[in-house]
Amino acid sequence: MSDMKKYALIKEFAPSWNNCIWRALAKALIVIFTLKGSIWAQSDPWAADKAFIKSIFDRALVQRQSYTWLRDLCYGAGHRLSGSVGAEKAIRWAKSVLDTCGLDSVWLQPVMVPRWERGAPEVVEVLGTPKRKAIRLPALALGGSVGTGGKPLIGEVLEVRSWEMLDSLGKANVSGKIVFFNRPMECRHVNTFEAYGGAVDQRVHGPSRAAKYGAVAVLVRSMGLSLDDYPHTGMLRYDSAYALIPAAAISTNAAEQLSALLEKEKTVRVSMTLHCRTLPDVLSYNVIGEIRGAEVPDKILLVGGHLDSWDVGHGAHDDGAGCVQSMEVLYLLRQLGYRPRHTLRCVLFMNEENGLRGGLAYATAAEEKEEIHLFALESDAGGFTPRGFSFDADPEMIDYYYEQILHYEEVLRPYGLLFWRGGSGADINPLRGQKGLLAGLRPDSQRYFDFHHTAADVFEAVHPRELQLGAASMTALIYLIDKYGL
Amino acid sequence: MSDMKKYALIKEFAPSWNNCIWRALAKALIVIFTLKGSIWAQSDPWAADKAFIKSIFDRALVQRQSYTWLRDLCYGAGHRLSGSVGAEKAIRWAKSVLDTCGLDSVWLQPVMVPRWERGAPEVVEVLGTPKRKAIRLPALALGGSVGTGGKPLIGEVLEVRSWEMLDSLGKANVSGKIVFFNRPMECRHVNTFEAYGGAVDQRVHGPSRAAKYGAVAVLVRSMGLSLDDYPHTGMLRYDSAYALIPAAAISTNAAEQLSALLEKEKTVRVSMTLHCRTLPDVLSYNVIGEIRGAEVPDKILLVGGHLDSWDVGHGAHDDGAGCVQSMEVLYLLRQLGYRPRHTLRCVLFMNEENGLRGGLAYATAAEEKEEIHLFALESDAGGFTPRGFSFDADPEMIDYYYEQILHYEEVLRPYGLLFWRGGSGADINPLRGQKGLLAGLRPDSQRYFDFHHTAADVFEAVHPRELQLGAASMTALIYLIDKYGL
Repeated sequence: MSDMKKYALIKEFAPSWNNCIWRALAKALIVIFTLKGSIWAQSDPWAADKAFIKSIFDRALVQRQSYTWLRDLCYGAGHRLSGSVGAEKAIRWAKSVLDTCGLDSVWLQPVMVPRWERGAPEVVEVLGTPKRKAIRLPALALGGSVGTGGKPLIGEVLEVRSWEMLDSLGKANVSGKIVFFNRPMECRHVNTFEAYGGAVDQRVHGPSRAAKYGAVAVLVRSMGLSLDDYPHTGMLRYDSAYALIPAAAISTNAAEQLSALLEKEKTVRVSMTLHCRTLPDVLSYNVIGEIRGAEVPDKILLVGGHLDSWDVGHGAHDDGAGCVQSMEVLYLLRQLGYRPRHTLRCVLFMNEENGLRGGLAYATAAEEKEEIHLFALESDAGGFTPRGFSFDADPEMIDYYYEQILHYEEVLRPYGLLFWRGGSGADINPLRGQKGLLAGLRPDSQRYFDFHHTAADVFEAVHPRELQLGAASMTALIYLIDKYGL
Repeated sequence: MSDMKKYALIKEFAPSWNNCIWRALAKALIVIFTLKGSIWAQSDPWAADKAFIKSIFDRALVQRQSYTWLRDLCYGAGHRLSGSVGAEKAIRWAKSVLDTCGLDSVWLQPVMVPRWERGAPEVVEVLGTPKRKAIRLPALALGGSVGTGGKPLIGEVLEVRSWEMLDSLGKANVSGKIVFFNRPMECRHVNTFEAYGGAVDQRVHGPSRAAKYGAVAVLVRSMGLSLDDYPHTGMLRYDSAYALIPAAAISTNAAEQLSALLEKEKTVRVSMTLHCRTLPDVLSYNVIGEIRGAEVPDKILLVGGHLDSWDVGHGAHDDGAGCVQSMEVLYLLRQLGYRPRHTLRCVLFMNEENGLRGGLAYATAAEEKEEIHLFALESDAGGFTPRGFSFDADPEMIDYYYEQILHYEEVLRPYGLLFWRGGSGADINPLRGQKGLLAGLRPDSQRYFDFHHTAADVFEAVHPRELQLGAASMTALIYLIDKYGL
């Protein structure tokens, strides 16, 4: 039992204590409870907490509030890239829902966001030869890409499987070509996010690294572990030292097909027509709701996800799920009559996908207002069955925090939840300077990259029970940290 | 570190020991390794095992052997109820595949199995009234049900939500009616198998308990947590003291619809036409393959699933998945050049669904041949992401076993696997008299009852990575138990 737990137990009993004798007796009892193997061992000091957490899970599974909200968000707003009509609708919707949740305050936090538009659907096509017809490749322009100026860009394709290969090919071979980055995600990783982390550099840095050697455009194999026909979009980052060249992702099946064609025909020419463009920044908002703490209102426990999504599908797993789960944390605790000690705040961040402006603006404002974030939890890894939480903090603090929370893991273990050290979430990462504890919900990752940044990421791809278990797990963790502190 | 582990380490190093001094030194080193916080703590005595287990997971995820086999089984044999053509095809297929796996022996174990046939598709229809048309309800006769004699059976529907309600309604209200058991699975359970266990008594015992009060037929709400249009079949058990009346499951949506109609119209008549029938028992087989143990060949570690399925869909999750995973355990260990100490046996049981004859025949034969089963592991809970293993044994032995295997849990924890006490599997349960350890693979259960015993349980419902992680997890556990014993 942590000191905090003992402290809290003492505090809870405080109102009924009339004198020091009772207090001493209670302390002695607590000491006895904690002695391993004592005759008191069967008395579980966490019994009331376990019962409350059971009531959280019960209500989440029966009521399915997140699932209902997710349907409303997906079908009401649809996809919602920063600055789009969908994003505006989502902001209005989220505020109006939070307004009905019985919170102490709900507000919009202004933030200027980049605005990138896909325009008319892109066309990527392998040119026909006398021996075969042209082949259309399912493709999506990468977020932030320049367009092809309203006309097809045609070039010979050069397949590249590593940075070393690109560098050794050099200007002589790359110049004037369309570079095709085709290093697959490594399927050996049990955690698919590791596979993503090992391949996404091609999408982020490929365009400028190819432009450095004179490439005219880039095609990237989609970031997915399945072989299918869905192209996966996502952000690129141009290096202003080089030409800004158009870039698109093609589906994994298309990547295999293109690679096989190159093997067979040696010279393969592709035509790319991208209509995308970047417009001036526009005003948007983070959506925030909070319940003010009864005992330490100046210390904040934050829970959140990001409200923006890519401009295909519904953005259901990424990150509609995290938004509705975060909203449900406050909603469930209110419904269950829990009176939090700390201030609980739900933040739906804008612009995680292509700028992180919402997360940065939130952290800047928090610093200006001298707000203290004791804990921040983000859900942005899909609405799948929760497997646990990963925790992150300032290196000076992480051991201390980890020691404090290990007791909570024991309480959550029956729900299949484990704790480990690792990343938290992109939107809350700018808060790390505050030296609080950061965490990420970690759902089962096996199916996530079948949907991530694709037209397949729709409401129907989310399982109601899996989504609800995530909401309940987050609520239970917030409850424990609120009640017993860090 | 368990004594077994130390023993095994000593044994492994044995060939290089020339005298007692070295032996004593090695023992001392092992003691030092196990001292918590010692300067040797960073040397991990499990390092070689962890590396081998990593190679198991790598190969399973890259090669996807179970997934390829599952496709062959689902599309080659299709569904495979005991005694059907599909079951025969599956037996031939499984034997031919095991014959290519480099095992020491592969054989068929004869077993007489019941044969029940659905016949032409069943028709369950709410009769029309002057105010509305007839309504067809998606339905499947329950396994083992009698038919309606080639003609419609028509009766008034009586909805029953509990056994108490049935008993209090009694003969006066039940006689001549079609009893409609409509108690839903309890969605509060995080483990959906608990929800199933709490509702399936209606399907198993409902027909005879209704017949006791003179009911003419039974409809049962499907055993599923989703609201959808798939009826779930499954076994009923007639009590020979009462009339054998026809029984069918209707989809959960149909159950809701029928219940709403009863609320509105009070008197609702349904027509049921079931063409099912029971034929004489026929000869079938368990399919068995084994690698003979190099050190203790008389002690068997068994891994298995059941080869039969219900007669709808592909029986992909139930239990094609468990079969191909069990086959892959032996295949992977052979491929990786592992030489087992114990005899490893893969058993694909026949007739789990409607008789358990395969499991019973296997246990009887084992007893006759005085075979010792040190450990048996069944996979029969779907091809979803593995969450761990549940362990079962004779009450006298379970504490001892559990103590032995907890070390293995630490090694498997990085793969997200936990151990707990619970049931193992229906087919291996008849072996419990041998007092060995029994275990069940426990995949994530959230989606299982969306597919169980329905036409939706097809190959495409299985995710390749989830299936493969199950195969790898089973292989890793068998490896640890083989190497370090129990």
